[in-house]
Amino acid sequence: MPPFAPAAVIARKRDGHTLHAHEIRDFVNGFTAGAIPDYQMSALAMAILLRGMTIDEIACLTETMLHSGVTLQWPAGSPPQVDKHSTGGIGDKSSLILAPLLACCGLQVPMISGRGLGATGGTLDKLEAIPGFRTDLSVAEMQAVTERVGCVITGASAELAPADKKLYALRDVTGTVPSIALITASIMSKKLAENPKALVLDVKWGSGAFMKRFEDAKALAESLVQTGRRLGVKTTALLTDMNQPNGWMAGNAVEVLEAVEVLQAASGPSDLMELTIALGAEILMMTERAMDMAEAKRIMVRHLLSGHAYEKYCQMIAAQGGDPHAALTVAPASEVTATKTGYITACDTEQLGLAIIELGGGRKTLSNTLNHSVGLEFLIRIGDEVEVGRPLAKIFAPKNKAALVREMVREAWTIGPERAEPPKLIVERI
Amino acid sequence: MPPFAPAAVIARKRDGHTLHAHEIRDFVNGFTAGAIPDYQMSALAMAILLRGMTIDEIACLTETMLHSGVTLQWPAGSPPQVDKHSTGGIGDKSSLILAPLLACCGLQVPMISGRGLGATGGTLDKLEAIPGFRTDLSVAEMQAVTERVGCVITGASAELAPADKKLYALRDVTGTVPSIALITASIMSKKLAENPKALVLDVKWGSGAFMKRFEDAKALAESLVQTGRRLGVKTTALLTDMNQPNGWMAGNAVEVLEAVEVLQAASGPSDLMELTIALGAEILMMTERAMDMAEAKRIMVRHLLSGHAYEKYCQMIAAQGGDPHAALTVAPASEVTATKTGYITACDTEQLGLAIIELGGGRKTLSNTLNHSVGLEFLIRIGDEVEVGRPLAKIFAPKNKAALVREMVREAWTIGPERAEPPKLIVERI
Repeated sequence: MPPFAPAAVIARKRDGHTLHAHEIRDFVNGFTAGAIPDYQMSALAMAILLRGMTIDEIACLTETMLHSGVTLQWPAGSPPQVDKHSTGGIGDKSSLILAPLLACCGLQVPMISGRGLGATGGTLDKLEAIPGFRTDLSVAEMQAVTERVGCVITGASAELAPADKKLYALRDVTGTVPSIALITASIMSKKLAENPKALVLDVKWGSGAFMKRFEDAKALAESLVQTGRRLGVKTTALLTDMNQPNGWMAGNAVEVLEAVEVLQAASGPSDLMELTIALGAEILMMTERAMDMAEAKRIMVRHLLSGHAYEKYCQMIAAQGGDPHAALTVAPASEVTATKTGYITACDTEQLGLAIIELGGGRKTLSNTLNHSVGLEFLIRIGDEVEVGRPLAKIFAPKNKAALVREMVREAWTIGPERAEPPKLIVERI
Repeated sequence: MPPFAPAAVIARKRDGHTLHAHEIRDFVNGFTAGAIPDYQMSALAMAILLRGMTIDEIACLTETMLHSGVTLQWPAGSPPQVDKHSTGGIGDKSSLILAPLLACCGLQVPMISGRGLGATGGTLDKLEAIPGFRTDLSVAEMQAVTERVGCVITGASAELAPADKKLYALRDVTGTVPSIALITASIMSKKLAENPKALVLDVKWGSGAFMKRFEDAKALAESLVQTGRRLGVKTTALLTDMNQPNGWMAGNAVEVLEAVEVLQAASGPSDLMELTIALGAEILMMTERAMDMAEAKRIMVRHLLSGHAYEKYCQMIAAQGGDPHAALTVAPASEVTATKTGYITACDTEQLGLAIIELGGGRKTLSNTLNHSVGLEFLIRIGDEVEVGRPLAKIFAPKNKAALVREMVREAWTIGPERAEPPKLIVERI
């Protein structure tokens, strides 16, 4: 074998060849160790983005990044570890419900989650609305909480997949984020570092998702699922609609409150319920807790109605330093009303995410601190009939801030003369 | 205008858009000044390589790189400055003849030349076979020799197109060399820094050239010519054959000796003569020294026969510190003979270049010092008839070194049963 030459590996990918496993491993390990400089990694990343990778290459890249750090190790005889990952959207608080709910089903949920990215919200940001809640657990703390409570939701510590952290920071400034291969390796290296038995992926498409086109979301879902399976983890994906927000609430504290409402009463917005139950059912079927969707739904609703799921949620919050019973601050509400009569036909969901950022509920730059009390409540859905003066949404924010985004929120919803079909939430299962 | 964001520029090129002039200028100037890091430049270079650039973008890139350093300034009333550039091949010593020859025609030739790259030879390496010859003139020395003698052949000093030096070093290690846009900007930024009135480009294609395929060479030639013209310089290109070496000799000292033979007697290998006269004629026509090819040829042959061209050559060598009359050392010769009877049908010209590198006449790594006395002499051409035992080539090298490359040299020439047509040397003019 000739000596390893990074420029030759870049040139092979540039010319559309399939890289050998040892080339991928040597390159990524060299990069993580600092032997291969950023300028070679960024050139390779661009070549990967434009030339693509086979599923074998993606699996090898994922495995190399996964093993760049520690992986969680579970004692023999533990309940099966499971997890869920979403590619990000507006108003999606299903992780807050699912983690304790699945823990009630005799599973362990060591969930590594993220912050808001672009216009989308982040589970960690939402949970930090709870006074005292810590999202920076070490690997040891993460394992301990999982084993004691059954679930945890925390950020990826520096020990986990350091190759991904280094590569992600580089991709962010070199125009190499939107690559199916690199997105897959980034998501899956962190999720597989949890060493789960089963994983469900919520891959969103539409105006509030990273993938605006259904075909792109489907290609990503297939890449994620095949990579998970190739690396020995039971994996399924649901392709779900993000052409309008999920649930009524979007923000931080307001989303925690909406999730708690579901946990306490098994009632909440129908789309949030549908998404949460469908994702949970995938896990229950993969781990043979349920034979089918109907049985899975019965099990989960029972745990919600009995109060077990809420109790588990409170245990998790407390185990991570938070006060589950603290009253969360929500900023004063003001209304956004329709200036037209007709039907809601479409939603620029990304604009709603940007409005939340404008209110201070999301980040413009990495160093921004968040105002957890601001947010939006949506009072309509695509397909609804509205008339002039009817409230479309509430803005939770100080008055001067609310004025800044009122037009953004109003104009995010398109009102047309013809009734539109509400979009199907769960479009496909992979 | 939004603030300049390098990652957004990279993303635009990644997605196949045409960059604005200000984006190209800000990016390249930022990179040259150190404000934009290597990892962003290499990602952009890969995106340019895979997505291409329009001629407007290439001209803007070239102009920005050209103005990253000083440009030569000629006093009013000087003779027109002209130059020739070749994309590189094996055995091509036409620059050594052309520079003094064109200076005899009332032109000034401030030629910036290069070293061997890959398997190809470099004019500077060849000239350094002459004891004392300096190729590291400052811009001031380069201008002074040009004005006094009429011609100079030297390396690009650090003052000229520093953006190109920095970018070239990065491209070399990031798999981003073979891009028409980046090659054009690299060549033309240095050539145009000479501030010439007319420029002829020898773009070679074939087994000994960078461009193995004629179409690629033609695309490069068109890019070079259009860029030159757009930036106000009369520019033409000849597409020439590099499917066998040019002239009989390849190496360093042996090539200088072959060039001197032409300069002293206007006689030499017919392909070397044809190439040199054709390139020179382009310059004489662009500068209106000749009406047509026939007149240009008459003028050049007269300067060769009169001894003026050789005299000018000696002046140039002396002005650059060399001894034009020094006997050049050539290593002992040994023969390579045919082991088959038939016709020469093809030549792996690159392999001949690699054999010269193996002998020490070219570089494996940048730090190698050359042995100027080694080289090859070719005794046959494509189309010739050979029989077993007939000498194909001579190797100039110490015996132990010669043995290393004898098979390489023999096998570079294909001998078949049917007579092959000799390739046409000058294929197209642009």
